[in-house]
This record gives sequence, C-alpha cells and structure tokens, in this order.
Amino acid sequence: MEGGAAASTPAALPYYVAFSQLLGLTLVAMTGAWLGLYRGGIAWESDLQFNAHPLCMVIGLVFLQGDALLVYRVFRNEAKRTTKVLHGLLHVFALVIALVGLVAVFDYHRKKGYTDLYSLHSWCGILVFVLYLVQWLAGFSFFLFPGAPFSLRSRYRPQHIFFGATIFLLSVGTALLGLKEALLFSLGDKYSAFEPEGVLANVLGLLLACFGGAVLYILTRADWKRPSQAEEQALSMDFKTLTEGDSPGSQ
Amino acid sequence: MEGGAAASTPAALPYYVAFSQLLGLTLVAMTGAWLGLYRGGIAWESDLQFNAHPLCMVIGLVFLQGDALLVYRVFRNEAKRTTKVLHGLLHVFALVIALVGLVAVFDYHRKKGYTDLYSLHSWCGILVFVLYLVQWLAGFSFFLFPGAPFSLRSRYRPQHIFFGATIFLLSVGTALLGLKEALLFSLGDKYSAFEPEGVLANVLGLLLACFGGAVLYILTRADWKRPSQAEEQALSMDFKTLTEGDSPGSQ
Repeated sequence: MEGGAAASTPAALPYYVAFSQLLGLTLVAMTGAWLGLYRGGIAWESDLQFNAHPLCMVIGLVFLQGDALLVYRVFRNEAKRTTKVLHGLLHVFALVIALVGLVAVFDYHRKKGYTDLYSLHSWCGILVFVLYLVQWLAGFSFFLFPGAPFSLRSRYRPQHIFFGATIFLLSVGTALLGLKEALLFSLGDKYSAFEPEGVLANVLGLLLACFGGAVLYILTRADWKRPSQAEEQALSMDFKTLTEGDSPGSQ
Repeated sequence: MEGGAAASTPAALPYYVAFSQLLGLTLVAMTGAWLGLYRGGIAWESDLQFNAHPLCMVIGLVFLQGDALLVYRVFRNEAKRTTKVLHGLLHVFALVIALVGLVAVFDYHRKKGYTDLYSLHSWCGILVFVLYLVQWLAGFSFFLFPGAPFSLRSRYRPQHIFFGATIFLLSVGTALLGLKEALLFSLGDKYSAFEPEGVLANVLGLLLACFGGAVLYILTRADWKRPSQAEEQALSMDFKTLTEGDSPGSQ
C-alpha cells in the first residue's frame, strides 16, 4: 500500500513543494524582520497595531491560502474526504488570521481618525476578502456539506478551482500594493536613495511574486494533478447513478 | 467547411471574448482619459514625456499581450501556422510599444536627473521585460523557426504556456504598482479625500485586475482549448515518426 502510494507521486513534485514552502516561510520571516527592524515591531494597544495588518495578511491570505491550494497535490494518496477537510480547515485558519489583520487596520484608522477605504489597495483588499468568504461558503455547501448532487459538484468544480487560484493571485497583488503604499508613505524621497528598508521591501515584493508563481506552477502542471482513487471512482459512479434517478442495482 | 468550423466553436466563448475586449478597450481609453484629464496629456519633448510610459505599457504589455494569448482560442479553426504567426506578431507589436514606453521613462528620468530602478515597480518591470523578451525568443526558436524536433516542441509547450500566462499576470501586477506609485507621488494626502483623479485611477486599477482575470478565465477553460485539426494530427505523427528515427513508411 505504501509502496503504491509512493510510486504514484511524480518524482519532481516534492522538490517543487519544498521550494514553495521555503519561499513562503522566508516571506513570512522577512515580513516579520521588516516590521521588527524598521517599524518598531508589533503590539495591539499602540501605534504598532497597524503592523499586525501586513503580518496577518501575509500569513493568512498569502502563505496559508497558497498552502491550502497545494493540499490536493501534496496529499495525493490520502482519502479524498481527509484532504477536503484539511483544505477547508487551512482556509478557515487563513480567513480568521486575515480577519484579525482587517480589524487591526480599521481599529488603527479609527483611533487615528484616518479615512477608510480610499486607496486602490483597500478596494482590492475588500474585494479579495468578500470573494474569499463567498468562495469558502460555496465550497463548503457544494463539497463538504452532504447533499449537493454529484452533477452540480462536477459542474461547480472547475469554477471553484479557477476562482480559488484567481483570488489567491489577487491576494498577492493586493499585498504588493499594500507594501508599496507603506513604503511610499514612510520613506518618501528616501526610497530613491536605496535606503536599506526600501531594498529589503523590494526583495520582499519579489518574494511575494515568486511564491505566487511557484504555487501557480505546482497547481497547473497537468501531470501533477491528484489522481482519482479507485474507491472514489466507484463512489462517483454510485452518486451518478443515484442522481440520475436509477438505483445502483438497476439494469 | 464553414458550417463545420462554426459548429466547433463553444457557444459561450464569443461572448466572453467580446467581454474581455470591451474591458481591454475601456482600460486603454480610461488610461488615456486619466493622462489627458489629470496629467496634461502626452508629448515626447517635454515633461509630458513621462505620460507616454503608462499608456504604452497598458497598450503593449497588458492589452496586446493579453490578446496575443487569446489568439489560439479565437482563431480555433484557422491553420495552426497562421495562428502562430499572428500570436508571434501581436507579441512583437506589444514588445515594440513596451520598448517605446521604457525609453520614455528612462529618457524622462535622465533629463530630470531622477534615480533609476530603485522602486519595486521598476524591479518588477525590468523582470517582466526581460522574461518577455526571453519567452519571445524561446517561442520563436522552438515553434516558428523550422528545425526544432517535435519531441522538444512537445516538452517545451506546457512551459511556454505557463510562463506566458505568468508573465502576463506579472505585467498586470506591475501596472497596478506603477499606477499606485503615480497616484501617491502626485496626489499625496489628497488621495484620502476621494479626489476625482484618485477614484478614477482606483477604477482603472480594478479594470486592470478584471481584464487579467477575464483573459485567464478564457485561457484556462479546459473545454475552450483549441482542438487539433485533422491535418495537424497527421503532420504531428509524421514529425514524431521522423524524430524517432523511422521513416514514415516503415512497418
């Protein structure tokens, strides 16, 4: 059984996954380093509350969201239901952490008397968050909650996959916009003098784009897609027969 | 012949393509409107030279690049070689227009004595431009220049498609960063007062993201992929036989 499972994992996949995780962890560490070294660190009850926003968003809507998409490639030989639950759970963690990040920035703006939701970053951010929530609810209703007919699941699956990847890429884009905003607000003219903070943040931006690219590559490689397990195929056939109105034993 | 060609075009595809073109043209028009209404228009020999940069980049590296990717979906019943040449030509137009946009910004910086290549936007921009050039040269060598073995073409094709889509998405992201930079430099604190220029540019940013999403959707719909024509399949088999060292008539 274990030999069979190992044999069905493409040889290069683990290296690509390891590389994506290295990128993702470096990304989170570097965001922490940026905030710690140049922005005074993180605290909830002070001006440092703002700094919780970029860290939560990078952990939740970039790193964890990206990893949730990879679950079907990594756990390719586990039972489908286990993989589904893990996929849904990782997205819940991502959503909760992103919510903390959202509360941080709105609370900070309120205390400072700053205007909300005027920038392109904030518009994209709200769009991402709403789409992410809708996608999670739709995914839960169709794939985890029992009762959705097999034909409906099959028709929704490609849309779920497309919008999942798109929301992830939009999250990466929104993070880049936010990083740029934070740099221009605080560095101003010093940005063009190649200040260490500016260079670090530019490298962080490139890492964000690379992580997005790595996750997209692993997701879209046709020969790395999760194969259907034998019992899933049998189950699907049963579902199909049931939803088409016949009993499994008819004919 | 014509009836057969029409029958093999998926019913919804033309509507999605039309929608993407509507988005793309609105994007170009709105970039022109933004530069005309709030930035004094475009001219080469003055301070307005900078404005040629965003317009050229949106036309070349967003609109034309996006359309070049869609060529295989739109011209699905033409000869493969014609479609290939059109794909390559659209990318050449995009590259030349982007080059004019690059010269505009470097020339403007030189005249003004501004520092080059310090921002995240410029780093991403140079990365996109180099990747785009390499991708074009590799695509030309493998697919248009005669002589590349069939097996090599088959192995490179998925990489070409993945990097094509990725470079396009990175172009859209870089445009968003540039737009944000232009807004923060010129509007400053007025951005948060919902100035008309800020709102227009935010809408432009959302349109950029939507155009990227629409092109990606059309590209990735599995049932909208270009079908192989009968004569291409025969030709492929010939190539395969030849590159595997047998003459077509053997066996």
